[in-house]
Amino acid sequence: MKTVYHFGGKKADGRAEMKELLGGKGANLAEMVNLGLPVPPGFTITTKVCQYFLQHNGKLPKNLDSEIKKAIQKIEKSVGKKFGDVNNPLLVSVRSGSKFSMPGMMDTVLNLGLNDKTVFGLAKQSNNYRSAFDAYRRLQHMFGNVVLGVDKKLFEQILTQTKKRLKIEFDTELTGQDLKNLVVKYKKLIKQKTKKAFPQNPWQQLSMARDAILKSWNVPRAITYRKLNKIADDLGTAVSIQAMVFGNLGDHSATGVGFTRNPATGEDKFYGEYLINAQGEDVVSGIRTPKQIQELKKEMPLIYKRLYTLTKRLEKHYQDVQDFEFTVERNKLYILQTRTGKRTAQAAIKIAVDMVKQGLITKKQAVLRIQPEQIDQLLHPIINPKAKVVVVAKGLPASPGAGVGKVVFSADEAVKQSKKGPVILVRTETCPDDIHGMDVAEGVLTARGGMTSHAAVVARGMGKCCIAGCESIKIHEKNKKIIIDKLIIKAGDWLSLNGTKGQVILGKVQTIKPKLSNDFAQFMKWVDQIRRIKVRTNADNPKDAKIAREFGAQGIGLCRTEHMFFAQERLPFMQQMILADNEEQRRKALNKLLPFQKKDFKGLFKTMKGFPVTIRTLDPPLHEFLPKTKKEAQILSKKIKVSEKKIWEKAEELAEVNPMLGHRGCRLGITYPEITEMQVKAIISAACELAKQKIKVIPEIMIPLVGHLNEFVDQEKLARKIAEQTMKKYKIRVKYTVGTMIEVPRAALTADQIAKHAEFFSFGTNDLTQMGFGFSRDDAGKFIKIYLEKDIFKNDPFQVLDQQGIGQLIKTGIAKGRKTRKDLKIGICGEHGGEPESIKFCCKVGMNYVSCSPYRIPIARLAAAQAVIEK
Amino acid sequence: MKTVYHFGGKKADGRAEMKELLGGKGANLAEMVNLGLPVPPGFTITTKVCQYFLQHNGKLPKNLDSEIKKAIQKIEKSVGKKFGDVNNPLLVSVRSGSKFSMPGMMDTVLNLGLNDKTVFGLAKQSNNYRSAFDAYRRLQHMFGNVVLGVDKKLFEQILTQTKKRLKIEFDTELTGQDLKNLVVKYKKLIKQKTKKAFPQNPWQQLSMARDAILKSWNVPRAITYRKLNKIADDLGTAVSIQAMVFGNLGDHSATGVGFTRNPATGEDKFYGEYLINAQGEDVVSGIRTPKQIQELKKEMPLIYKRLYTLTKRLEKHYQDVQDFEFTVERNKLYILQTRTGKRTAQAAIKIAVDMVKQGLITKKQAVLRIQPEQIDQLLHPIINPKAKVVVVAKGLPASPGAGVGKVVFSADEAVKQSKKGPVILVRTETCPDDIHGMDVAEGVLTARGGMTSHAAVVARGMGKCCIAGCESIKIHEKNKKIIIDKLIIKAGDWLSLNGTKGQVILGKVQTIKPKLSNDFAQFMKWVDQIRRIKVRTNADNPKDAKIAREFGAQGIGLCRTEHMFFAQERLPFMQQMILADNEEQRRKALNKLLPFQKKDFKGLFKTMKGFPVTIRTLDPPLHEFLPKTKKEAQILSKKIKVSEKKIWEKAEELAEVNPMLGHRGCRLGITYPEITEMQVKAIISAACELAKQKIKVIPEIMIPLVGHLNEFVDQEKLARKIAEQTMKKYKIRVKYTVGTMIEVPRAALTADQIAKHAEFFSFGTNDLTQMGFGFSRDDAGKFIKIYLEKDIFKNDPFQVLDQQGIGQLIKTGIAKGRKTRKDLKIGICGEHGGEPESIKFCCKVGMNYVSCSPYRIPIARLAAAQAVIEK
Repeated sequence: MKTVYHFGGKKADGRAEMKELLGGKGANLAEMVNLGLPVPPGFTITTKVCQYFLQHNGKLPKNLDSEIKKAIQKIEKSVGKKFGDVNNPLLVSVRSGSKFSMPGMMDTVLNLGLNDKTVFGLAKQSNNYRSAFDAYRRLQHMFGNVVLGVDKKLFEQILTQTKKRLKIEFDTELTGQDLKNLVVKYKKLIKQKTKKAFPQNPWQQLSMARDAILKSWNVPRAITYRKLNKIADDLGTAVSIQAMVFGNLGDHSATGVGFTRNPATGEDKFYGEYLINAQGEDVVSGIRTPKQIQELKKEMPLIYKRLYTLTKRLEKHYQDVQDFEFTVERNKLYILQTRTGKRTAQAAIKIAVDMVKQGLITKKQAVLRIQPEQIDQLLHPIINPKAKVVVVAKGLPASPGAGVGKVVFSADEAVKQSKKGPVILVRTETCPDDIHGMDVAEGVLTARGGMTSHAAVVARGMGKCCIAGCESIKIHEKNKKIIIDKLIIKAGDWLSLNGTKGQVILGKVQTIKPKLSNDFAQFMKWVDQIRRIKVRTNADNPKDAKIAREFGAQGIGLCRTEHMFFAQERLPFMQQMILADNEEQRRKALNKLLPFQKKDFKGLFKTMKGFPVTIRTLDPPLHEFLPKTKKEAQILSKKIKVSEKKIWEKAEELAEVNPMLGHRGCRLGITYPEITEMQVKAIISAACELAKQKIKVIPEIMIPLVGHLNEFVDQEKLARKIAEQTMKKYKIRVKYTVGTMIEVPRAALTADQIAKHAEFFSFGTNDLTQMGFGFSRDDAGKFIKIYLEKDIFKNDPFQVLDQQGIGQLIKTGIAKGRKTRKDLKIGICGEHGGEPESIKFCCKVGMNYVSCSPYRIPIARLAAAQAVIEK
Repeated sequence: MKTVYHFGGKKADGRAEMKELLGGKGANLAEMVNLGLPVPPGFTITTKVCQYFLQHNGKLPKNLDSEIKKAIQKIEKSVGKKFGDVNNPLLVSVRSGSKFSMPGMMDTVLNLGLNDKTVFGLAKQSNNYRSAFDAYRRLQHMFGNVVLGVDKKLFEQILTQTKKRLKIEFDTELTGQDLKNLVVKYKKLIKQKTKKAFPQNPWQQLSMARDAILKSWNVPRAITYRKLNKIADDLGTAVSIQAMVFGNLGDHSATGVGFTRNPATGEDKFYGEYLINAQGEDVVSGIRTPKQIQELKKEMPLIYKRLYTLTKRLEKHYQDVQDFEFTVERNKLYILQTRTGKRTAQAAIKIAVDMVKQGLITKKQAVLRIQPEQIDQLLHPIINPKAKVVVVAKGLPASPGAGVGKVVFSADEAVKQSKKGPVILVRTETCPDDIHGMDVAEGVLTARGGMTSHAAVVARGMGKCCIAGCESIKIHEKNKKIIIDKLIIKAGDWLSLNGTKGQVILGKVQTIKPKLSNDFAQFMKWVDQIRRIKVRTNADNPKDAKIAREFGAQGIGLCRTEHMFFAQERLPFMQQMILADNEEQRRKALNKLLPFQKKDFKGLFKTMKGFPVTIRTLDPPLHEFLPKTKKEAQILSKKIKVSEKKIWEKAEELAEVNPMLGHRGCRLGITYPEITEMQVKAIISAACELAKQKIKVIPEIMIPLVGHLNEFVDQEKLARKIAEQTMKKYKIRVKYTVGTMIEVPRAALTADQIAKHAEFFSFGTNDLTQMGFGFSRDDAGKFIKIYLEKDIFKNDPFQVLDQQGIGQLIKTGIAKGRKTRKDLKIGICGEHGGEPESIKFCCKVGMNYVSCSPYRIPIARLAAAQAVIEK
């Protein structure tokens, strides 16, 4: 097993494609070397080593140590320094890196190789005593924290106290001696906390750091991140070891990070931040607020030009925006890292469209480049520009959009309070331990850190609004207060964030839906050119239907008629119907509901004119319409003049042990045919009335919860009878079809029979998942959570369609259905119809359409297009 | 279309095999004619005519009338009489008859062809004025009731009043003039009720009677009978029209019915009843109590001998017991009908075994001859012979077994009261309208009627205890009283029936399980020789296991461990476990349950030694073990010293919307591994302790509700770990297997994967049906009832396995499972495992065993043997 891959000079063992083996970092370092970029030499320990390490209880492959030794010698030769040499010591960085970028999740140790002796060698070589000790104290700090597990706050406390005592504000003001003193204190701290001295042997430092990184693959925050981002647990991390270069050797040195285009807006403008006389971590950690890269043009014009040229070359090579790190050591530029830049959805669209225009990528590549879920960010509300807002502070617009919620000061509190309502997470700065809190918050506000700080990067990835580096606010995490001048904001107070502008706004501000850019329209045009499957919406009222049309819906795939009965002026009639003693009384109540339904359907048909509208007959069990408590029964009693006793008795009579598997769906229509009759009458009447006005209507009557052909036939016959009667009455004919939901496993299994009568199928994957797994959606949350934690499930099957099990029922249903009826129209109307992976599955198995909620339509369109390309 | 099949002389158009076309009656009449038996000539209108009639709204095939005319002419020629001839009239009977015998369900008209003129011709020809008018008044009565729809009670009232007025007891005492007067009154009644005179034209009589019979196929009682007996609704009835012969022409005439063997006991003894000077309906209706056939030997020795010879010939020809009707007209014997005799289960077994011994049938034929469900009758309780009983009356032992329940006096009342507890239906005599009441009653008691009365025949068919013709009791149906001398038994009083002995017993008497006959043992031996699949039992305690062993169980297919937790001394520990705040507390409570479980398992293993015992880990949701009301919580609080509030909170926390699809089955074991640990420890400890005593144990650990391979693997790993630990502790090894229930549709669909780890599958068809159909067993009763009524379902899928849908999941599960693991052991442990048709399906799809409740084991063994023969 080749455990170590070298890079440096003009040649590397690896390539960009080897991300799975070398990690993104290692592979890109190798690629840059091959491209001839100035990269400090080094080598990468493969992910295979990590896998071996994890599988063998912390043991390592036998040949690893000797391979590492050889690789270090190669670096020594290349840079002319020697690892552990007291006169001219080689220092290295040790970084983790897996196939997928996991920002801030894995740990880094810089300046490794320093000890009480080599620090003087470094000072001599760099001719900079101060920077040598600066490097050494950083090693102590990082190594102490990451490798030895000493709380980093303890190091920070010592640093803060020192600065306080010396009455200075910035680290850069510390002298060489100050730093030397700091090293003594740090060593003491380490000894005290770990009962062992800081290891002086560089080789020991190296192997300890390596092992710490390997182990860090399985720390909780890494596991959480992988779970959130659906990254496999068995990939493992690579470890890249690279000769150090120093950005902290004075004013001709610098360090920075950047993007080849703006990752927040997508604008094609060089973008980044840097610090003079600093090491990389200073920029990323948000401890000092860095300068904009444009200033580098003035401070180091040659360096700036070279950096711009090199990174643009990288962008062209990778055909995508690059997120890079660089260091300038005494006027010499090194590129330390490059990777595909994370970006907001808005930026992603703009970049993709721009790159097509610039001839860098094809339309298909552009379409594949946007994750369908990302689009969600573009569709969600922003602060209403017309709203009167009180801006109390301004920070960096780190991630766009709006966030409105109650203030919380810790991730745990965020999780707790978010169950009651929306929260805004406010932190001095965030760290990987905060991920679970960021995940549930509506927005994130930090006092420190730049556009590439942890908070900013993670929030952008999550599509969550974020304001970073808002230095005018003071956060007292302990006392749970934000102080802005004389204003105090406490935990639980409402706060609004405008992430697009970086405005912190007092109170609860109104939000509106955003305008979509021309780039977005252009992009979606390409999407629709490629897409083959149709996208419809689930909508129960003209308002939703209208939104859906604007998002490109090609019809309604599911109109749940029961939603129409819950309106205040209608519910009493529904209740009268349920409480009726006989069919006659029931019909009387239903007759009162008929005009409402007809009106609803007319509205939907009008909005969707020319597109099909699938209307499902009554589905939920009747007890859902009755009072749940005695008090509610009392109120209803007065309203509809039926005795409280009778209402309560009926509610009890109708109560079910397992309502999900009870008297609902077509079972209602079969036992109370008059309900189906009324609904069909309303549908066909509405259609006829519009047809007379020359409006094209395509009604599709859908029978829910069919499990047996005979159930369908019973309802179909009735529907056709009523439809014929109604059309006769109106003296006009409309074309309508009668089909069924396939949501009961037995329906999928006997689809060949059902298709003899049903003209279309719509897979109700919510119920199909409930019944196929035997999971009640209302109750399964508890144990599905544990299943995900225990890795029994990769996904919640209610979120992502279980292709293996439930998918099999779908495939069977489609194959059998089309065997009987070649032109059977097939769609999906469960919530999976808006989930990208599930949509791709629907395309693959040959459905005619997917149907989802209005806001997910663009996502569905994109996923459907990607399915075509990926095929 | 040939609409009419002739029979008579020595030749018939039909054959015994043509039951579907000619009905059982018509086919057997044809067969008897072909065999040379003395059968009055006639013809049969086919069931195809009935089907045409039903499908075409009461229209008849065009050629039918002319065919009937021709057929009547053929009879006229044969008997030398003429239909409607005033001097020598031909009279005919008109009877219905479908493929399956439906005793008493369809209607008959005798003496058709009589009118005010032909009655004198008949009198002259028969030289019997009285019998002619007797026949005419019967025609009025039957025709008036069956064809014209006049309530039969009105005819009976007139008859009763007449007899009262004349001060006579029996119909036979009525003179010719009395009967003539009766005819006048009957005609008046008919005129009054139908606004039309009784039709005098014989051809009109004939077509009206024919149409009435065709229509009667769809009267409610016929539909009910078909539903109860699973007879298809589209078969239709044939109509047999036959020359009349008369048993009421004086003392040389007689009529009777009989069986070639005793239909109650199976004894090989000629058996029957007859009446001198009567028409057939007198014997069957139970209005007069007939004589035993043995008396005929004395009264008409030659006739008896010929009857015996002919019917035994029929038995030999049909290779089965015959149920026949005969008439002696002036010393000439006619056989009017023969059919396979219905019999009790006990009789069926004895007859089958005897016939094999007598060389009449083969063992395989014998095995096919018993309906598996019939065996149920033999296994169910009889009156404890040791019980002290107060016999208050004796009647005919019409159907054996015991019935204990509260007295009801009408079928509707029986249905109503049976929901609250067992009932005994008490009627003066039963009629087809009572079927629904007999169906729900524990036993039937009638004051009138013989062993072949309606009550007796139907009760035997249902395997229900019945005492008929109990003449010493007086039944006041109106006042709801039974009067026996001075004793009064009221509605709601407890009454016990010993159907085997014909004893009516006061109060609620203890019942015991019956001894099985040697014939039964012999029969089951043949069954087991033929059977291939194994039969196990579902049993949770050694007592049930013992019963099951006695019935031939070859192991336990399902032990529900949760039943063991409900015992009074155990439940508190279970509740403590559920109320525990943490794993430690939970383990503490579980440790207290461990010894109980171990003891249970030892008991089961011992009873089943050498046979496999499948033990299912905890299945039901935990809230089932907690109080359902606040009051129960209060009581528990005191008992286990946990605050009421906490108990109630926990109960509410655990409550589920759909518990069937909730936190249960392996989901419990995965979230609380310590429960599985305890159970496996108990199983393997019990096994080890017995193994040390050299008792052979075969434990099979079964994980419930698995839907995904990973669920199984999680629990399997844990089980194997604990099993290994336990065996190590005991220093002995036992062979055990770990398998799973297949009860979640997804498990069947992914059986190939699950079988990679699972060593056996047991299909839990109860849950598979619930999830496959989306029916909650607790709630579906309401609409399944309506589905059955509306013919949407042929069977309740919880009673009879749905082979088409759920069966498909089973087939898929087996095929996929065996694809991965060739020797996968597969069984069924749902309630379908005891239902004959479902068992046959299990055999067909290649299961290794079925498992059912102890009392259904012999049924399962028989069904399994029949499956082999039928294949």
